[in-house]
Amino acid sequence: MALDPTKHQDWEIAQDAESSMLTIYEIGEKLGLTKEELLPHGHYIGKIDFKKVMARLKDQPDGKYIDVTAITPTPLGEGKSTSSMGLVQGLGKLGKNVCAAIRQPSGGPTMNIKGSAAGGGLAQCIPLTPFSLGFTGDINAIMNAHNLAMVALTSRLQHERNYTDEQLERLSGMKRLDIDPTNVEMGWVIDFCCQALRNIIIGIDGVNGKADGFMMKSKFGIAVSSEVMAILSLANDLKDMRERMGKIVVAYDKKGNPVTTEDLQVAGAMTAWMVDALNPSLMQTLEGQPVLVHAGPFANIAIGQSSIIADKVGLKLADYHVTESGFGADIGFEKFWNLKCRYSGLKPDCAVVVATIRALKCHGGAPVPVPGKAMPEEYSTENVDWVAKGCDNLIHHIRNVRKAGISPVVCINAFYTDTDAEIAKVRELCEAEGARVALSRHWEQGGDGAIEFAETVIEACEEKTEFKFLYELDMPIKKRIELIAKEVYGADGVDYSAAAEKSLARIQADPELAGLGMCMVKTHLSLSDNPTLKGVPKGWRLAIREVLTYGGAGFIVPVAGAISLMPGTGSNPAFKRVDVDVETGKVEGVF
Amino acid sequence: MALDPTKHQDWEIAQDAESSMLTIYEIGEKLGLTKEELLPHGHYIGKIDFKKVMARLKDQPDGKYIDVTAITPTPLGEGKSTSSMGLVQGLGKLGKNVCAAIRQPSGGPTMNIKGSAAGGGLAQCIPLTPFSLGFTGDINAIMNAHNLAMVALTSRLQHERNYTDEQLERLSGMKRLDIDPTNVEMGWVIDFCCQALRNIIIGIDGVNGKADGFMMKSKFGIAVSSEVMAILSLANDLKDMRERMGKIVVAYDKKGNPVTTEDLQVAGAMTAWMVDALNPSLMQTLEGQPVLVHAGPFANIAIGQSSIIADKVGLKLADYHVTESGFGADIGFEKFWNLKCRYSGLKPDCAVVVATIRALKCHGGAPVPVPGKAMPEEYSTENVDWVAKGCDNLIHHIRNVRKAGISPVVCINAFYTDTDAEIAKVRELCEAEGARVALSRHWEQGGDGAIEFAETVIEACEEKTEFKFLYELDMPIKKRIELIAKEVYGADGVDYSAAAEKSLARIQADPELAGLGMCMVKTHLSLSDNPTLKGVPKGWRLAIREVLTYGGAGFIVPVAGAISLMPGTGSNPAFKRVDVDVETGKVEGVF
Repeated sequence: MALDPTKHQDWEIAQDAESSMLTIYEIGEKLGLTKEELLPHGHYIGKIDFKKVMARLKDQPDGKYIDVTAITPTPLGEGKSTSSMGLVQGLGKLGKNVCAAIRQPSGGPTMNIKGSAAGGGLAQCIPLTPFSLGFTGDINAIMNAHNLAMVALTSRLQHERNYTDEQLERLSGMKRLDIDPTNVEMGWVIDFCCQALRNIIIGIDGVNGKADGFMMKSKFGIAVSSEVMAILSLANDLKDMRERMGKIVVAYDKKGNPVTTEDLQVAGAMTAWMVDALNPSLMQTLEGQPVLVHAGPFANIAIGQSSIIADKVGLKLADYHVTESGFGADIGFEKFWNLKCRYSGLKPDCAVVVATIRALKCHGGAPVPVPGKAMPEEYSTENVDWVAKGCDNLIHHIRNVRKAGISPVVCINAFYTDTDAEIAKVRELCEAEGARVALSRHWEQGGDGAIEFAETVIEACEEKTEFKFLYELDMPIKKRIELIAKEVYGADGVDYSAAAEKSLARIQADPELAGLGMCMVKTHLSLSDNPTLKGVPKGWRLAIREVLTYGGAGFIVPVAGAISLMPGTGSNPAFKRVDVDVETGKVEGVF
Repeated sequence: MALDPTKHQDWEIAQDAESSMLTIYEIGEKLGLTKEELLPHGHYIGKIDFKKVMARLKDQPDGKYIDVTAITPTPLGEGKSTSSMGLVQGLGKLGKNVCAAIRQPSGGPTMNIKGSAAGGGLAQCIPLTPFSLGFTGDINAIMNAHNLAMVALTSRLQHERNYTDEQLERLSGMKRLDIDPTNVEMGWVIDFCCQALRNIIIGIDGVNGKADGFMMKSKFGIAVSSEVMAILSLANDLKDMRERMGKIVVAYDKKGNPVTTEDLQVAGAMTAWMVDALNPSLMQTLEGQPVLVHAGPFANIAIGQSSIIADKVGLKLADYHVTESGFGADIGFEKFWNLKCRYSGLKPDCAVVVATIRALKCHGGAPVPVPGKAMPEEYSTENVDWVAKGCDNLIHHIRNVRKAGISPVVCINAFYTDTDAEIAKVRELCEAEGARVALSRHWEQGGDGAIEFAETVIEACEEKTEFKFLYELDMPIKKRIELIAKEVYGADGVDYSAAAEKSLARIQADPELAGLGMCMVKTHLSLSDNPTLKGVPKGWRLAIREVLTYGGAGFIVPVAGAISLMPGTGSNPAFKRVDVDVETGKVEGVF
């Protein structure tokens, strides 16, 4: 009997369920894995040898591919992960062979802000503690691979300064790269929120003089913002990863030519650190369905969703595979649609748009809730008008999903303060739009509460799809941006800063770059680029401030808004509440 | 049939053997582990749930405890790890139930200098690549636990600067610690050799102004130099680890009082990252004997040997457990004897002193070999006189082992250039000293070449021991240092710098510190504190430059020599030669 989510914290529910969870061997059996394909890490989590699975099942048709996205969220989120877990548990209750893929959480937020990345209430995946504290080590591998490139760069700068061409040649057959220390793109990474490392000076000479590095400005980002993480999420296999790993632009030389990881002779060693990380990890829902965990790229500059490899494996192993695209359908789903599916070659069968009555009210005019503060009173009393008005935002996202040629399913992620009249209004407006709607009570009831949701998704998956991209890669980048701005965000047009114009001209003129995929960066708190505008903002133009290039990951990043690759740790950090029971070894207070 | 070590590189021999190695389940069976006690990480490496094992076998008597140390090495090393593996393989050939414990190698040296930490030739442990590239994740866990303390420190400095006492109290119930930013002890860690991060400035304000940290000097050390690593190596269990984790001194407040990890409310979360790391990892020799891998503390400031927990588990699971104490008997064995055994309560049955003819010649007067350069010709021609003279150093180490009340066994780690006359001379001089001697050809022949070695160790283990410490912890620290200097190193006395005198006075006056263990720091290249003096230097005084305190790890560190916690990456780094075969997934060129 699961604990009552209205009375217990998520981590208490998880820990209680963990005492009777399936072993990883049982989960492997559910998925039909051979003994060799399942790589256990202890008895409750593991990895899957994806290459062996893909070889064995190469002729097996894929299962149904379901993406879970959401309306424009409030700062509190819409419960997308919770709904993904709920859907998987609901499909499980119906006896379906189901699998999901989610992201690995970063240590930064885990230690800074309480809040689960594993769902919540009775719709979670477990075991929660290893999931939150390093798991099977992929983020650490990324950190090491990434920082090794910085070791290569900084030691090279030092040696090239200290030695003549002839000495370099004699010492190691090294040719001078002539790196411009004022034009370094890459920084270091660490898996925590650490504002003190945002802007740093390194290589200050100490007792070792000129053997103490090369003095220059540098920076740390959070590990999940690493381009190596972006590569992990988009690589199709080891060969693909190895190629991309060598194309990361670390810096520029004094003539302005890019210096890559391959130029630094470090791409092979970086890949060596990543071989195991290429295998997706495996855990389970509270009700024993398999959940893949693989990659966790930052949504700020990368795709913000789990890996292509995890989805490919899940589709081979299950009849229904549920994946999640971070934030609202305008950004998360758009990247899933035009970037991830393009690089994977996979076609989704339906997309779920998660909505809460709370967020609909917020879009309809209720005061915006603030994390950490009490919910405004307006959210606990019925207000059908606000809900109705807020449905404009939901309908906008429904139409976006339709543009991809697939069926939307609206999931009303129920909360106990929702009223029947409010729910009926959402149903009415969505049905008028021709969309399927399901009310789901997975947070409170687990899979039993998600039966309607699961049945609706099954039905939608049977519909014929005509999946199509919004644009092709031969379309000029400015045109692609404009298309997304108008068609997906509802803007009137696009404005570019001088810096963005300059970058775009350079990228468009380079045939290798002009044909890359595109990964938009915009606030998730509004359809527009202004986080305070709710509903469906009208009469605005998208402002592109800069355009970044991720040659290894294989996309360019038009940025509408500010980018920070290193969050800060607040004055009331979550780590204060974490401790270990030294008798049982159980970790308490994570989440 | 194993590959020929005179024709193949170590990593080629390892990779060849890996194609037919035992699974981790078979290794677990050899050790008599229950299914629950063995925590596999994939099919060939794993961890052992030490708490379960220790509970099940609490009434089982311990096996024989064998420490492997060496004479004062040349800069090329004496093959201590190779001899440890050789001994285990030899004991295995004799049908003994045997186990070993070694350190986990750091990514820094692996990516910088070619050279195995897993033995060599036909005496190695496998699988080599995971061992060298992150293994089961313990060093990464240490890195995260350690850096989390720095996140806590640096964000605290920022928040205390930005907010009044009242604001701090309201935001998070935080009391001002009033940390002195000019008196910070702790730095960050990364698992690479990275001179550019030795001396840095952090917290430079950028676009976020005063939310970009607190500007101050800072530093990075290599991960294995972390005090968290030292704690892992000396902790007896989780409770012990949790207590030590809170006693790490991070900085001092403006009144000069220590600020600990417990004061920063981060010790619980740090321990949470380390729960899995407390379980020793498991791999195998080339001939299928179990090898535990646990901790890998820097010998520069810490104990430089594998963990107490690994030894305790090995002694319960095997009849013979082989452990290794880094560098020569003067430092490695002395710390094993007076620090590790004191904290573990374990008593060794014998100690092996590894010697090569090469090193004996060097101590006898031959030119000192230089790593990376061709061996001086003198080493390939017979010179019994040099060998005889060099035996003074060996005899000094034999006597040191005797002072601990246990039997020394000299292992001549054979090389193909050694002559019969040279070997006979070593035997003669050692036997005159009353020590057992064995010639061993494990590098060339594996376990078959180590039969004499194994038999000699078995014989020595049957001898009655009267293990005793050189000093008790109530002895004043200066007296302890003097005792070690005279009795173990052969110095005439000890001189202290003004800084060392000041620290010693403070430590001696503090009852909590005065009773801590002691971990000496001195060059390993000479019995003296001058690395150029070979043989048994006479007429010198030990110069103590400073005395450090590691309150968490639980020892004070008198330093005779320079300490660097961050090695540099050279101009011809090993990472250049590492790559991945994208078809097979095999990593090539590590070592």
